[in-house]
Amino acid sequence: MKIAVDAMGGDKAPEVVVQGAFQAAMEWGIDITFVGDRDAIEAQLADKQGVAHIHVHHCEDRVRMDEAPLKAFRQKREASIRVAFDLVKKGVVDAVVSAGNSGATLATAILTLGRIDGIERPALPGILPVEKGRVIVIDVGANVDCRPVHLFQFGMMADAFARASLGMNNPKIGLLSIGEEGGKGNEQVRSAHDLFRDSRLNFLGNVEGRDIFSGQVQIVVCDGFVGNVVLKLSEGLAEGMVKMLKEEMLGSMTSKAGLLFNRRTFKKFMQRVDYAEYGGAPILGIKGVGIVCHGGSSVKAIKNAVKMAHDFAKEKIQDKLSEQIVIYEGLKAQGIGRKT
Amino acid sequence: MKIAVDAMGGDKAPEVVVQGAFQAAMEWGIDITFVGDRDAIEAQLADKQGVAHIHVHHCEDRVRMDEAPLKAFRQKREASIRVAFDLVKKGVVDAVVSAGNSGATLATAILTLGRIDGIERPALPGILPVEKGRVIVIDVGANVDCRPVHLFQFGMMADAFARASLGMNNPKIGLLSIGEEGGKGNEQVRSAHDLFRDSRLNFLGNVEGRDIFSGQVQIVVCDGFVGNVVLKLSEGLAEGMVKMLKEEMLGSMTSKAGLLFNRRTFKKFMQRVDYAEYGGAPILGIKGVGIVCHGGSSVKAIKNAVKMAHDFAKEKIQDKLSEQIVIYEGLKAQGIGRKT
Repeated sequence: MKIAVDAMGGDKAPEVVVQGAFQAAMEWGIDITFVGDRDAIEAQLADKQGVAHIHVHHCEDRVRMDEAPLKAFRQKREASIRVAFDLVKKGVVDAVVSAGNSGATLATAILTLGRIDGIERPALPGILPVEKGRVIVIDVGANVDCRPVHLFQFGMMADAFARASLGMNNPKIGLLSIGEEGGKGNEQVRSAHDLFRDSRLNFLGNVEGRDIFSGQVQIVVCDGFVGNVVLKLSEGLAEGMVKMLKEEMLGSMTSKAGLLFNRRTFKKFMQRVDYAEYGGAPILGIKGVGIVCHGGSSVKAIKNAVKMAHDFAKEKIQDKLSEQIVIYEGLKAQGIGRKT
Repeated sequence: MKIAVDAMGGDKAPEVVVQGAFQAAMEWGIDITFVGDRDAIEAQLADKQGVAHIHVHHCEDRVRMDEAPLKAFRQKREASIRVAFDLVKKGVVDAVVSAGNSGATLATAILTLGRIDGIERPALPGILPVEKGRVIVIDVGANVDCRPVHLFQFGMMADAFARASLGMNNPKIGLLSIGEEGGKGNEQVRSAHDLFRDSRLNFLGNVEGRDIFSGQVQIVVCDGFVGNVVLKLSEGLAEGMVKMLKEEMLGSMTSKAGLLFNRRTFKKFMQRVDYAEYGGAPILGIKGVGIVCHGGSSVKAIKNAVKMAHDFAKEKIQDKLSEQIVIYEGLKAQGIGRKT
């Protein structure tokens, strides 16, 4: 498996990106192709040993974080993110990882590799830690104005993804709303509720904000606007609480003594709320593998995103997803898909 | 100031509601009128001493938690929530507190007391603790399908509320979106951004989910669907993290020793993330005072909500809000309201 890494994308590119991907190459022997400015990339690699799995594919241009995605795609044929997806298209590499402009990464992935048949809107799932295991929130930002059928397809894709990639068996799906009854929520959610209810998916009904991290469902479906707020709020709140806790602990001598005892506990707790553990989010619904990382990704997040790209490409997740969707659509067409 | 408390509303009514309001009467000498089934209420008060400030206004009916708000309003003239707001209308009491069906409480408040002139949609703010101070999120569930002008009015009301009631001077306002640039977000948010930008409000621009608890703004504006998700997610995540932390602490003997030292720290931390401290949310934009509490409110939350109702009524917040809106609209009509 060869993974193309967009070396020019991200708030701290190429430094953090190159370092993270380099660590993935060292730790798991993953074959990396950095795409971007050769001199800038090689400067980051200069002091590094054991670069057998590392290649550089030079290109002249890059997409800035604030550029309009479609305009960038049309005008910048030599941008690192576009060249990276072209390499997938040509069969030179198997997947792309980018911490750059996420809109541009999405647009480029969709326009270069194409949608899986039957999927109207590819989507980005967020994989979040819960008390016992993980929860997938879909969509976390690819689609801000959605129709009910899009929400339904997000659930279908997340279901296929959870089974094929996360080893979840018959994952429970909840539709994010502001009341548990089917009649509650906004117009979009009320219509989507009916689509889910009539499907073969393991749909538990509406869930509320407080249920996202309760573990009662493994998949939470919402539009990309709400999902992005959920994702970023969760990160911000977790970080904020850890900070508050540290302050309280250091606030008194008694607590300082306690802190010594609790160092191990605190470290374990941090691991459980550390979103960098999950690296990035795979674009679901495209004919290929693309992993979108946060612009401010840490070295560890990039490293884990590269691992995710590698595993996805190896497992041919997109084919499995495609198969499941074909089966699902076939059943639906025969009327077998409906529960009632 | 006389506060009517809907004794029949809430998951654990009348027990928890009566207990909470009773504590408010004892602690602050607030005059309480319980509205609901006299026998049920008096049974809860039977063992209580010093009930000088407590009255009971009997009524026969109640609105269940899952009833359709408008239907309940039309058909149940003798329901406790309706009788309570009628008492405000008649001038018998000064405010209402209810932990019952929040849709019914809102509808009843609006239909009984009426909207403040110029306000299209009354809204519910959530008051959340941040590292230093508080943040108002508006709307947290009153309006699920909003137009841009509604979002703008939410900001205007929260601004007046923050100044008059929370002592905030020129509070900074952020519009919740999924990118900081004005062009980002969904259609609703992009249009609302322009209204805020051209206004006299202290508008900082778009904020993202992670900024809600950062303290960079004092008011976060969003539609009621998104706001409700934010509110409930925050509560759920804070509770979940506290639970995780307790488990980690109790997970080893070393940590148990540490826990003894850290008991005070932990208690302080809990106070900072305890949403019950804030009681309930005032309905903004109506001609009167109504406080909506969570159905699962604790005794402490009800107690604090009664205090909030008392302070609101005393300060005549609705009049101040009305004045500020009139001034604002007047300035706008003269073209003085616009910055540019």
